[in-house]
Amino acid sequence: MEEFTVTPWEVKGRVDYEKLIKIFGTEAITRDLLERLERLAGGELHVLLRRGVFFSHRDFDKILDDLEKGKGFFLYTGRGPSGPMHIGHLIPFILTKWFQDRFRANVYIMITDDEKFLDEEKMSLEEARHWAFENTLDIIAVGFDPDRTFIFHDTEYIGKMYPLAIKIAKKINYNLVRAVFGFTGSTNIGLLFYPALQIVPTFFEKKRCLIPAAIDQDPYWRIQRDLAESFGYYKVAAIHSKFLPPLTGFEGKMSSSKPETAIFLTDDPKTVRTKIMKYAFSGGQPTIELHRKLGGNPDIDISFQWLKMLFEPDDRRLKEIEDSYRSGAMLTGELKEYLIDKINRFLEEHRERREKAREMIHVYMREGKLARAMWERDLLDTNTDP
Amino acid sequence: MEEFTVTPWEVKGRVDYEKLIKIFGTEAITRDLLERLERLAGGELHVLLRRGVFFSHRDFDKILDDLEKGKGFFLYTGRGPSGPMHIGHLIPFILTKWFQDRFRANVYIMITDDEKFLDEEKMSLEEARHWAFENTLDIIAVGFDPDRTFIFHDTEYIGKMYPLAIKIAKKINYNLVRAVFGFTGSTNIGLLFYPALQIVPTFFEKKRCLIPAAIDQDPYWRIQRDLAESFGYYKVAAIHSKFLPPLTGFEGKMSSSKPETAIFLTDDPKTVRTKIMKYAFSGGQPTIELHRKLGGNPDIDISFQWLKMLFEPDDRRLKEIEDSYRSGAMLTGELKEYLIDKINRFLEEHRERREKAREMIHVYMREGKLARAMWERDLLDTNTDP
Repeated sequence: MEEFTVTPWEVKGRVDYEKLIKIFGTEAITRDLLERLERLAGGELHVLLRRGVFFSHRDFDKILDDLEKGKGFFLYTGRGPSGPMHIGHLIPFILTKWFQDRFRANVYIMITDDEKFLDEEKMSLEEARHWAFENTLDIIAVGFDPDRTFIFHDTEYIGKMYPLAIKIAKKINYNLVRAVFGFTGSTNIGLLFYPALQIVPTFFEKKRCLIPAAIDQDPYWRIQRDLAESFGYYKVAAIHSKFLPPLTGFEGKMSSSKPETAIFLTDDPKTVRTKIMKYAFSGGQPTIELHRKLGGNPDIDISFQWLKMLFEPDDRRLKEIEDSYRSGAMLTGELKEYLIDKINRFLEEHRERREKAREMIHVYMREGKLARAMWERDLLDTNTDP
Repeated sequence: MEEFTVTPWEVKGRVDYEKLIKIFGTEAITRDLLERLERLAGGELHVLLRRGVFFSHRDFDKILDDLEKGKGFFLYTGRGPSGPMHIGHLIPFILTKWFQDRFRANVYIMITDDEKFLDEEKMSLEEARHWAFENTLDIIAVGFDPDRTFIFHDTEYIGKMYPLAIKIAKKINYNLVRAVFGFTGSTNIGLLFYPALQIVPTFFEKKRCLIPAAIDQDPYWRIQRDLAESFGYYKVAAIHSKFLPPLTGFEGKMSSSKPETAIFLTDDPKTVRTKIMKYAFSGGQPTIELHRKLGGNPDIDISFQWLKMLFEPDDRRLKEIEDSYRSGAMLTGELKEYLIDKINRFLEEHRERREKAREMIHVYMREGKLARAMWERDLLDTNTDP
């Protein structure tokens, strides 16, 4: 019996990531793999890789083989637009952009307005489409190459995807989606069909596809990997990230329905300060005296963990903070101030890029070089691969 | 226990149509209804109505109410492009055209290339799309009004239909499609989703929709009728036809996989003659002498039944043939010659119209007045109703 649950729709309990590798049957990202990647990337690895936020993979070694042979690869990730995005949601996009920058790879980003509408009883299609638009701005703000990136909303791009989707759907039956996703007799027939659609972009090019995503999406890729070769395509490769822990502690994941657990990309500086001061679970001692004497515990301190996972890329600086906090020299309040400052600077820049994204949305979705090619081509005709 | 089976995918045994009305819970088309229709149509009813080929309905009386109130209605029918079309396949289209001519109503014709591909294990999508094109030519040859008719292939028009389809799909779960269509754990997820798509065109206009179709399609409309009002639309009305019996006798229906059971629209005059002479089940006697003495039985004679159901619209002439055959004056060979001549004349005209249809396909599918409106509008925006 596990004491935690991870599915595409739910994360409960404190996730044991080593156990998750065994449960999902994936592989750990080893030092060895990271060193190969570093050589190929010709420079320091991204903090999300260096610090083990991406911890698990499938066939990532084969992506490296392909790179060594000069074959190349493409990237695919996505977002279910269920509401405003929080900082945790950006993690796969930040790493995807890093891969794109280093290897000049094409990036496909699927915004699954259909899936969110079908999955959430109370969400209207109009709301899902509204969030699809808003989230697209946040994703563009990450800074993808406008000529090598195609962002698409399912309910808009379905006309191109459907013929390929039904070819995939014909090979997936109810028993399989019940077993993989836990669907039941009450699951609506739109959601039953949806897994076929999420697989389509893995066939956008006849190269290996790398998916940076939170590990809860892995079930989709298991089905893809069973089918891909019968279609003449590669099994997808994936690298899986841990969840950025909720402010309130390591249980579950950040949730839009519990605002105290997350920092949203739209939170203003004052809200950020209040949330972190009030909710960020601390590894410090109850009083300053005790803290100075016994020291804090950065391993369970969410502010420190956020710095480590994303917000303090300087390894030396992070070590200083860790030592200082552990020794009791740095107080919880000081640690929190440090994080608040980092986050508010990050969000300020994000907001500026997000405003500029309004003018760029047509480029990523319609008029950029890759976007235009994807609207013109026939996905069943592999001679039109970008 | 019934001794026959009628589902969207199978017809077995000799269909008892009166029983079918009870099993499906539809209503018989009464003399009364036909008289009301005749008054509204301002002229003689089509032979398919006069002779009871269309025998069952749902809410057809409400279509007549709407007509009397000057509200109007629209027509929807379709075709699963599994192969070449035979004469039986034309029946719903012939009656649909008659309704269009009499009431200047819009007609929507869905060609379900996706469903046929998903349903038939050995059919490729490319084949289904090939037959979609070929069948469209046969349907255009029936003579619909090019500005009031929109013919669309699912895999082409899906981009417009999908947003509305998922709104419908969200209200249909696996238990329902299992109960209604007999789907099982081995049914593929494309086919599980398909019923939502077949319902979409019933919401193309905020008027009542009349569906002339063979009765095996009724299960789809039962689901539509449960949902329609929650979407602010009308429950569909339908009139159901009997199956034109196979040449070989009253068991089952004509089948593309058994060429001796059917006359195809592409059969040349010699093939028509051979098939009817060789296979058309006869109500005549074993020898001429016995036939002259005892007479034939038109009630079980397929040649006579085909004349009655479709090919001899002249009531007086039909009566003469019936009497003459029953008395023994007309021999089976003479009856068959009469039918062969009728069919060959029909097919010759059909072939000519089918050749001309090649130039018209773009009008019905893209450029005609209704087709253009349907490609321009947003199906979720009811203000754009044609």
